[in-house]
Amino acid sequence: MTAQPPVRRALPVDAELRRRAAAVVPGGLWGHMDVSRMPAGYPQFFEHAEGCRLRDADGNEYVDFMCAYGPMVLGYRDPQVEAAAAAQAAKGDVFDGPAPVLVDLAERFVETVAHADWAMFQKNGADATTTCVTLARAGTGRRKILVAKGAYHGAVPWCSPSVAGVTAEDRAHLLEYEYNDADSLRAAAAAAGGDLAGVVATAFRHDVRRDQELADPAFARAAREVCDAADAALILDDVRAGFRLHPAGSWEPLGVRPDLSAFSKAIANGHALAAVAGTDRWREAATQVFVTGSFWCSAVAMAASLATLERLAAPEASQHMAAMGVRLRDGIDAQAAAHGVSLRQSGPPQMPLILFDDDPDLAKGSLFCLEALRRGVYLHPWHNMFLSTAHRPEDVDRALEATDAALAAVARGFPAAA
Amino acid sequence: MTAQPPVRRALPVDAELRRRAAAVVPGGLWGHMDVSRMPAGYPQFFEHAEGCRLRDADGNEYVDFMCAYGPMVLGYRDPQVEAAAAAQAAKGDVFDGPAPVLVDLAERFVETVAHADWAMFQKNGADATTTCVTLARAGTGRRKILVAKGAYHGAVPWCSPSVAGVTAEDRAHLLEYEYNDADSLRAAAAAAGGDLAGVVATAFRHDVRRDQELADPAFARAAREVCDAADAALILDDVRAGFRLHPAGSWEPLGVRPDLSAFSKAIANGHALAAVAGTDRWREAATQVFVTGSFWCSAVAMAASLATLERLAAPEASQHMAAMGVRLRDGIDAQAAAHGVSLRQSGPPQMPLILFDDDPDLAKGSLFCLEALRRGVYLHPWHNMFLSTAHRPEDVDRALEATDAALAAVARGFPAAA
Repeated sequence: MTAQPPVRRALPVDAELRRRAAAVVPGGLWGHMDVSRMPAGYPQFFEHAEGCRLRDADGNEYVDFMCAYGPMVLGYRDPQVEAAAAAQAAKGDVFDGPAPVLVDLAERFVETVAHADWAMFQKNGADATTTCVTLARAGTGRRKILVAKGAYHGAVPWCSPSVAGVTAEDRAHLLEYEYNDADSLRAAAAAAGGDLAGVVATAFRHDVRRDQELADPAFARAAREVCDAADAALILDDVRAGFRLHPAGSWEPLGVRPDLSAFSKAIANGHALAAVAGTDRWREAATQVFVTGSFWCSAVAMAASLATLERLAAPEASQHMAAMGVRLRDGIDAQAAAHGVSLRQSGPPQMPLILFDDDPDLAKGSLFCLEALRRGVYLHPWHNMFLSTAHRPEDVDRALEATDAALAAVARGFPAAA
Repeated sequence: MTAQPPVRRALPVDAELRRRAAAVVPGGLWGHMDVSRMPAGYPQFFEHAEGCRLRDADGNEYVDFMCAYGPMVLGYRDPQVEAAAAAQAAKGDVFDGPAPVLVDLAERFVETVAHADWAMFQKNGADATTTCVTLARAGTGRRKILVAKGAYHGAVPWCSPSVAGVTAEDRAHLLEYEYNDADSLRAAAAAAGGDLAGVVATAFRHDVRRDQELADPAFARAAREVCDAADAALILDDVRAGFRLHPAGSWEPLGVRPDLSAFSKAIANGHALAAVAGTDRWREAATQVFVTGSFWCSAVAMAASLATLERLAAPEASQHMAAMGVRLRDGIDAQAAAHGVSLRQSGPPQMPLILFDDDPDLAKGSLFCLEALRRGVYLHPWHNMFLSTAHRPEDVDRALEATDAALAAVARGFPAAA
């Protein structure tokens, strides 16, 4: 195996911003957008975005396949969404209570999401998943929550992927199962015994650094059965996937409806909003818990969401994203075969992940992404990516020009017989 | 005692919105803005706001003393803040990383907040308080957190005022002390023994339904000493009070600096933002924890915050709010004396609370607030209120006309000798 060729890029404005950030922000940045966790060469700071095009602080433009890690589903600065947001902002955003748009938006959720009898709104995806867990416990008087091993449900103590600063008690009543493994789910439910409050499942398996797995319908049905048998809550964590796969809920094509579902990311095309949708079985519990936040009733994000969901409710939206994802996937598959590079593309086409064979340290994936990056295409080496309705065939084709060259670089850097 | 006179108000648009909301939102609304928890007669939905004037869905205008429960500190739809927000929105809000404004804002926090060597940003006040607790644990390797009995630090399982859906383990490592009671704090620290990670204190005692108490300097110093002795984190929960009392931090006038402080509410004049500020002692811990959210890097709220903090950094801002609060307080005191009504006004003048003597069920307070409400003044019967820099003397005087009539109604409704 050869050493990874350096793919350094001169980003002087970004470097200066990072130098200043390092002084006043621990580690320069927190969380999932911290590019110090990624291969050297990624820009940290961004200046401008429109449609599916993103411009870093040094003025480099990218066709973006991360969509701000999900929120951007109709394109950055979508004119209709921003007009709706501006119209609300001209009247007001926060008040001493909600604006009428809250009712419009809750009605829209109930109309659109198949299992929803009601909705509540928050700011973070973790607000929504945590509220679902709290509702499951309040509505059953029980404590145990089943979660899939390695699944991401937010970065708060009960579910953060890091245990720094977390106590054992924060996770005292979690029991793990293996995603898509009905037997392991039933075993975990048996271990919970009479204390089972709920089962949490992501829309599909989208853990980082491993091939994605679509939800097996038999697994989804087993989750429904386990919850029905115990009168426990089936909680669909649709934060990451919601409204990209199916407007009625990501498990609707499987024929399995959850009791509670958590949304965020794409529901307001970039405005900060999260939502919990639930069935009438859990309505009373939702009146008993006390969950709130200073900005949970903010009207501008709700107006943006209403405009976003109107567009996403049409099946053409997810169909277009899927078609663009397939175009990208098929193109990369053909290029990889031509260059003799072995890689795996997994997950729904709207949320692709590309991992390379024989790449335990992600050196190939990193080289691939950096070579694409310097050719104006923003991909991610180990986190699922996102398509939007703003990706047009010509954007994907523009990306494929870059991936072809990037795969050639991988073939050169990692000769098969090395 | 006479029965409380009815103060019904016809709010047909509000009533219709509530009817629709009841179908699609559990209980009609969640959390602190749910007016079903308040005396009948308050509007639930709002249509418009500007400066310190708020208009409900039926078109009634109020001089507002709740400021959206705190966020509105420069006036609703402040032109400078909204111009800064719009300028950033024209470039973009969410990206695959932060915008340069994140660095400007973190630098501003470090310049403005006396103890701050660094800052991190979130969305909810509870994101900030939870992050502080996580940092205290990560930075000490210990678990116990001291909290004041009855204090509000957010509505997440470890600290929600409700225990519906909360498990005992969520609060396993909390120990309670009495606010402003140094002995009880030292006793709690002794009970924590070698496992003390941090002490959380609000800027002053602002628990609902009881007289507010300013922080006793001796108590604040004791909290500092307890933390210094144990190398534990002194966490100032400045979410509700931050930047209304003092731009350098609410305990700066007491001469006591925390290790970590949590901000939200007022820091972006209504845009969804929270912040943690910390000292270098806790910088390494802040790089070890994993805390994040989909919208924590959103640039528009940061641009709004930068414009807000520029204005709040000037001492005139909190001085003006205090002067307006004193004008209101002095006026009400004089009116109460004239009407023979006994009441207590507590807390800093920027965040007043009015409670009536011999009013265990808050019937007097409710009547007072409803009579003010129908005269166009929005007060709260049991939660602290908020002044803003947009409150001018003539707004306060306008409010005092209403409170004079409202106190007359209280005097009539509750004759002293009843």
